[in-house]
Amino acid sequence: MGTLTVELGERSYPIYIGQGLLEKAGAYFEQRGLSKKSPHLIISDSNTAPLYLNKLTESLANAGYNTLTFVVEAGEKSKSLSVYEEVITAAIEGGLDRSSSITALGGGVVGDLAGFAAASYMRGIRFVQIPTTILAHDSSVGGKVGINHPLAKNMIGAFHQPELVLYDVDTLLTLPPREVSAGLAEMLKHGLIWDADFACWCQEHAQGLLALEPEALEYGLEKGCAVKAKVVSQDEKENGLRAILNLGHTIGHAIEAIAGYGTLLHGEAISIGMVGSAMLGVRLGADPSLVQETRAMLQSLRLPVVLPRELETDAIMSAMMHDKKFKEGSITFVVPLSIGQVEIRKDIPASLVREIVEQLKEV
Amino acid sequence: MGTLTVELGERSYPIYIGQGLLEKAGAYFEQRGLSKKSPHLIISDSNTAPLYLNKLTESLANAGYNTLTFVVEAGEKSKSLSVYEEVITAAIEGGLDRSSSITALGGGVVGDLAGFAAASYMRGIRFVQIPTTILAHDSSVGGKVGINHPLAKNMIGAFHQPELVLYDVDTLLTLPPREVSAGLAEMLKHGLIWDADFACWCQEHAQGLLALEPEALEYGLEKGCAVKAKVVSQDEKENGLRAILNLGHTIGHAIEAIAGYGTLLHGEAISIGMVGSAMLGVRLGADPSLVQETRAMLQSLRLPVVLPRELETDAIMSAMMHDKKFKEGSITFVVPLSIGQVEIRKDIPASLVREIVEQLKEV
Ligand SMILES: NC(=O)c1ccc[n+]([C@@H]2O[C@H](COP(=O)([O-])OP(=O)(O)OC[C@H]3O[C@@H](n4cnc5c(N)ncnc54)[C@H](O)[C@@H]3O)[C@@H](O)[C@H]2O)c1
Ligand SMILES: NC(=O)c1ccc[n+]([C@@H]2O[C@H](COP(=O)([O-])OP(=O)(O)OC[C@H]3O[C@@H](n4cnc5c(N)ncnc54)[C@H](O)[C@@H]3O)[C@@H](O)[C@H]2O)c1
Ligand SMILES: [Zn+2]
Ligand SMILES: [Zn+2]
Repeated sequence: MGTLTVELGERSYPIYIGQGLLEKAGAYFEQRGLSKKSPHLIISDSNTAPLYLNKLTESLANAGYNTLTFVVEAGEKSKSLSVYEEVITAAIEGGLDRSSSITALGGGVVGDLAGFAAASYMRGIRFVQIPTTILAHDSSVGGKVGINHPLAKNMIGAFHQPELVLYDVDTLLTLPPREVSAGLAEMLKHGLIWDADFACWCQEHAQGLLALEPEALEYGLEKGCAVKAKVVSQDEKENGLRAILNLGHTIGHAIEAIAGYGTLLHGEAISIGMVGSAMLGVRLGADPSLVQETRAMLQSLRLPVVLPRELETDAIMSAMMHDKKFKEGSITFVVPLSIGQVEIRKDIPASLVREIVEQLKEV
Repeated sequence: MGTLTVELGERSYPIYIGQGLLEKAGAYFEQRGLSKKSPHLIISDSNTAPLYLNKLTESLANAGYNTLTFVVEAGEKSKSLSVYEEVITAAIEGGLDRSSSITALGGGVVGDLAGFAAASYMRGIRFVQIPTTILAHDSSVGGKVGINHPLAKNMIGAFHQPELVLYDVDTLLTLPPREVSAGLAEMLKHGLIWDADFACWCQEHAQGLLALEPEALEYGLEKGCAVKAKVVSQDEKENGLRAILNLGHTIGHAIEAIAGYGTLLHGEAISIGMVGSAMLGVRLGADPSLVQETRAMLQSLRLPVVLPRELETDAIMSAMMHDKKFKEGSITFVVPLSIGQVEIRKDIPASLVREIVEQLKEV
């Protein structure tokens, strides 16, 4: 089993990655000092709950914890204000107090939703992440939580670090193949922004990762989480460095919004976005091979690298303008210099981005 | 003009209290380094906006700021998730980015609502408080922001300190008399928990305060804010000391909820609550004169001291159980020992509280 720590002073917390961790959740709750007098709320979704919720609540009950559960519909649509309100209602009706916690058992959707509920219920209570998707190795670490607004993704949120991240890789075995690939997009991203060797490793071990081989999975998730943890430790609230984690996301978020949340998976959208970033990198001086290399890595993980023609460039551009990365009139972009190395540029003209969006539609 | 500072390390901020400050808002924005490139959103309510919004936007425009305004209906009902959503929509449509700010021009309702919007929009942008009620000398200082859930008040929120509190006492002259008294309840509270002399001063200068004489007002607000600022500096997130600010609020919030938000003003409800706290203090050993003294002080400020009979004790008790001050099974209460001195008790049995609620109905 691997253990990492996100170093954030008094808000530091451990990430455990391994097999059979769900059965030990009670012990981890105890270790983190969660109260046995107060009720704890577990949020899960309609796909994950039938598979893993009982295992979790049993482990907690055996350790003497009093839990309540709330299951939301699977999918990005649950990251809405109305589902958020339902979660808060469940928390109040369940009598959650300031010593209670909220746990996310699921992917990034449940993590972001439950995390924002924990951040804002009674002005903030404790939060536990139990990720069950590969993508959630990214979303469960770092404390960004939030929900969507009909006009733009992740517009409503907070920074709220979890107490604990419990990553049981056994849960990943039930993931649909498309979700596996989408999650691997964020894993590869951690290589592309920080560690060329790790990016190459992802490509070389693509078959093992896609087949969910435990060894490959544990190594890849640990490496991915480690990059994320290091970046977050240095810049918790995204005043600088942390923005590199947004590689592919400026275009990716816009694509996701225009396609309609849930049509393209988050990881698929940022896969296309990362190809766009590589194209931008080349326009700004990187070696022209960067685009082909990036494409090949993503394709080895069975990810899309071409923007569907039916998504209109105008709509994508206007969605980008609503994005948080649009600051004081110019678009902020994470631009790769080479595999494993990126820079943050705040001066990318919209006209250039538009050209890239068009180029992304070419097979 | 008085200036105070809330000492919170890098989150420290100034409070300016005086006449004619609204006209100088632009200069204060500049002093705090607010961006002139990004749009700034001002939230106000239907009573306050017609009186003061133009003055504020003119001052900001003259200083070169680009502002948008959003006016909500006056009253506690605007501290709801649906109005919050409207505010966020206005922020997105107005193109607010990470360098933008949200300003509250109004009383505690607008302050709490706008503050939670600022806390959660893009995971937190800057926030300016321009209080226009006496009560808001309390609510605008200390960073507690939030909205109500139909089941309980202030259930959804955050700690989000403002950049700046700009308290123009000229705006108070248009306050309806009931609001004046309600605001003075929180002013007196600051004496009752911390400073017996100040509590006596409030009683002695009740006429001047009720008549909104600028000199009395400025002194009282400065003293009140100073107590609040000192307590918050020592315990920003309410892990201990800060709870003393809740004197009268355990019962008060329950009364407010049961009467229906807005029927009894917040200050009126906590006035009755503070009488209840004094009764509890006496039951726990304080001098019996405490109840009469507290009542007299509140009555000098034209505040209610008797609980309306039609409010059912059962309903009040059950509302209290939903309150944030109910932690791990026992009710936390701020109990006065004498005027100017309180202690936090976590062991108050519900049965005793029930007796107090009954006693509060006796004239
Ligand atoms: N907070 C952050 O820092 C951050 C970072 C990246 C992404 N995100 C967010 O994460 C979300 C995407 O996360 P996601 O891809 O995990 O989505 P998700 O939570 O929707 O999970 C994907 C799908 O897999 C199902 N599922 C989850 N675990 C399963 C399992 N073990 N077996 C079978 N099915 C399972 C889910 O029900 C869902 O249908 C997006 O909303 C994105 O904005 C947040
Ligand atoms: N955040 C905190 O720490 C904190 C502390 C105490 C109270 N509160 C909250 O504050 C709220 C109560 O604040 P409030 O009493 O200021 O209520 P409010 O904002 O509703 O204002 C009271 C009334 O006065 C009107 N008004 C405001 N300024 C005026 C002016 N200058 N002239 C004429 N009319 C004016 C308003 O339109 C409203 O009708 C409650 O929601 C309470 O929960 C918060
Ligand atoms: Zn992502
Ligand atoms: Zn109050």
